[in-house]
Amino acid sequence: MEFMEDALKNAQEAFERKEVPVGCVFIYKNEIIARGSNEVNETKNATRHAEMICIDLVLSYCKKLNLDPQEVFREIVVVVTVEPCIMCAAALHNLSVKEIVFGCKNDRFGGTTVVNVFELLQSSVKIVGGVRDTEAMDLLKEFYKGENPSAPLPKTKRKV
Amino acid sequence: MEFMEDALKNAQEAFERKEVPVGCVFIYKNEIIARGSNEVNETKNATRHAEMICIDLVLSYCKKLNLDPQEVFREIVVVVTVEPCIMCAAALHNLSVKEIVFGCKNDRFGGTTVVNVFELLQSSVKIVGGVRDTEAMDLLKEFYKGENPSAPLPKTKRKV
Repeated sequence: MEFMEDALKNAQEAFERKEVPVGCVFIYKNEIIARGSNEVNETKNATRHAEMICIDLVLSYCKKLNLDPQEVFREIVVVVTVEPCIMCAAALHNLSVKEIVFGCKNDRFGGTTVVNVFELLQSSVKIVGGVRDTEAMDLLKEFYKGENPSAPLPKTKRKV
Repeated sequence: MEFMEDALKNAQEAFERKEVPVGCVFIYKNEIIARGSNEVNETKNATRHAEMICIDLVLSYCKKLNLDPQEVFREIVVVVTVEPCIMCAAALHNLSVKEIVFGCKNDRFGGTTVVNVFELLQSSVKIVGGVRDTEAMDLLKEFYKGENPSAPLPKTKRKV
């Protein structure tokens, strides 16, 4: 899938900026209108996930072209390398995006895995997971290996 | 509690702007450093909840005063008139705020009621609910009464 290729490139770029490597693109009428990746470390703002970056870019896009954001979001397909976290999942539900396509699962924070936010909120968003998941996961593993050699793999749940 | 008084004022102000009346203040070292209320309708951005507005204001505050946002957020007490939704609850967890004080419950979207996001994410955020909850709920009831034309009619007898 060409769009996931683009999202993976953004994840790679985040990796190079020493951010958790998650990349994302937002598709509107079969065209990419926003590209994003994690900016948490750079901004020291733990909410600046790839999806949140893209949400803001779509709003700027709508403003520029004088489009109604509500209508645009309803047609948006989100393509993201890692399953959206609970915060992003709820944000995407709030915006009523059309579809979410993700790569690998997010066993610690995932908004469909840890808890199914979409089910809880009776969402009609279509969700497809597992698209090029190995590549997405490899990037995460590489990142966590580099960051903290003694850290468990991202898939391992933290013990309390 | 004086801070909830301030949050309720912000909720009232949102009501007057025809937004879902939720108001919020963020406290740092016993002082209000951010005030926010819903801006969803105005911005046509369903993620612009009171808490998200305040998060951005805290980041501006930190930039201006050259403070580390991570350290500041760790000391923040969030005072909000309505229980944070799942998105905001997860965002506040991500930012590791110190404490959340809320007014009334949010039975449809609440991040502790519909699902306990903090428990799921093994959060150490202290949470206190029910502070001046009647006033917060009254504002919501008043708003939805005015907004929803299909809401049940008041039980006054119609003259024939």
